Amino acid sequence: MVIDRLIEKIIAMQNPTCVGLDTQLDYLPEDMRAGVGTCEQAADALLAFNRKIVDSVCDIVPAVKVQVAYYEQYGAAGMRAFLDTVAYAKKKGLFVIADCKRNDIGSTAGRYSAAYLGETALDGQTVQVAGCDFLTINAYLGTDGVQPFLDDCKKFDRGLFILVKTSNPSSGELQDLRLADGRTVYECMGYMVEGWGAELTGAYGYSAVGAVVGATHPAEAKILRGRLHHTFFLIPGYGAQGGNAEMLKNCFDENGLGGIVNNSRGILCAYRKNGGTYYEAARAACLAMKADLASVLGEICAK
Amino acid sequence: MVIDRLIEKIIAMQNPTCVGLDTQLDYLPEDMRAGVGTCEQAADALLAFNRKIVDSVCDIVPAVKVQVAYYEQYGAAGMRAFLDTVAYAKKKGLFVIADCKRNDIGSTAGRYSAAYLGETALDGQTVQVAGCDFLTINAYLGTDGVQPFLDDCKKFDRGLFILVKTSNPSSGELQDLRLADGRTVYECMGYMVEGWGAELTGAYGYSAVGAVVGATHPAEAKILRGRLHHTFFLIPGYGAQGGNAEMLKNCFDENGLGGIVNNSRGILCAYRKNGGTYYEAARAACLAMKADLASVLGEICAK
Repeated sequence: MVIDRLIEKIIAMQNPTCVGLDTQLDYLPEDMRAGVGTCEQAADALLAFNRKIVDSVCDIVPAVKVQVAYYEQYGAAGMRAFLDTVAYAKKKGLFVIADCKRNDIGSTAGRYSAAYLGETALDGQTVQVAGCDFLTINAYLGTDGVQPFLDDCKKFDRGLFILVKTSNPSSGELQDLRLADGRTVYECMGYMVEGWGAELTGAYGYSAVGAVVGATHPAEAKILRGRLHHTFFLIPGYGAQGGNAEMLKNCFDENGLGGIVNNSRGILCAYRKNGGTYYEAARAACLAMKADLASVLGEICAK
Repeated sequence: MVIDRLIEKIIAMQNPTCVGLDTQLDYLPEDMRAGVGTCEQAADALLAFNRKIVDSVCDIVPAVKVQVAYYEQYGAAGMRAFLDTVAYAKKKGLFVIADCKRNDIGSTAGRYSAAYLGETALDGQTVQVAGCDFLTINAYLGTDGVQPFLDDCKKFDRGLFILVKTSNPSSGELQDLRLADGRTVYECMGYMVEGWGAELTGAYGYSAVGAVVGATHPAEAKILRGRLHHTFFLIPGYGAQGGNAEMLKNCFDENGLGGIVNNSRGILCAYRKNGGTYYEAARAACLAMKADLASVLGEICAK
């Protein structure tokens, strides 16, 4: 099961981090972006940048998270760069989390699931378009909008990360609202996620249906970690958004398992702060982040 | 302001409907889809189908809603078909609602907004990729995930439809939860939407920041219509999902204004039920829907 393989790789590498390929044109070194005047050129530049990052980190991090918005803004050419980035990362052995936060009613959710996790129907045959290992989704619409993704997780051995408590400053406006029964909206969403994952629980006790829980909200993370025993967390917010290792300790269990921490700008743009080539600086930033997490998590081991 | 122009067109046509181009390969007549074996061929077939639909309905409906998931599942070729469909509908004078339900933290939301409403940055210049009139978004993340879209609405004269009470059967699992203060989650989201639109209210009293309110939930629609006086509704769920004219009357004000009703399968696949070419049948279905809505709304007029 995909979540088991991810956990095994995290243990083998002693590194629960993923590199966020939220690649923006102005993150690129001057010589890679100078004169980019079309979406096709932009897409080519992003892909070239991503490939060098992937080459440089693929032996020390288990996964990349590719944020589709940064590619989608370049239209069809951008989608090609997204898909080529996904394919390249997979080829290099990385787990790929497609960060798309998709959501819709069931029939439409099925199309999104086809795009990122499953297969797309042609006339009398199917084709795999992205084949990502994991997809982020938003479950504001409830179970029938989630079911097509769950079906593909079972059929194609994929996983999900569902928005529960997001890392942004305004996340509490809706997510922290207190319900009449005493729970918050985000807790309620967390319980729903735990339920959706019940049939997809793997050998290490975590299911293929995970939750997005921001590193920037340690108190809420502690509540969720204490209640969602089978839910693996995708943890954004480390680095540029203000989250640090001590804050995200609450996202993990006593064995240092239970989550994977994303860092995007802190890795992609490390060269601006620390010098060197962008890909060497990205590798150094990954190693520094690994050490930082190890300082609070200790040795990561299976239960 | 875009919402004013949409309202004026609805009044001029006496037709508050939009055609949902949720175009699926198996909706196409046999001769248009036979032998489609690649994403490129699928994308070409969808675009050809959509163009004939647009040609056939553009003088009787004010808008189309293009559901991006149906295109996204064909990868980069699908995105090209999506963008070409949008461009063609705009050229034919239709308002275009990009139904993408996008959502993310602020920095990333800005990239989605660039893709669908605003402009994308290249090196020292910008390019308009889709330039849609309206975009659907999901506001589970709160204000800072909505702000970049609002900024582009102001800058580029665009509008939004934010998920409030969706049309699907499971929508109540989260949206109907009762808060400690007595409101439901969907009411709370509705009030947030009304607030976000405060600075974008047009001449007819409705703002460019609308809400998605399903035709399938008339009781909830009545509550929302009674409280969100400046919020225009995008109303899915008519037809194949089970909503009818009587049920969606609650979404409109006493002048027959306040919403636009989407129909996708009921129009695109009308030829299977009623015979004729798919585009003639689509036109007939639009006229039948117009008459159906008029039977409960009466004459639509400005306040």
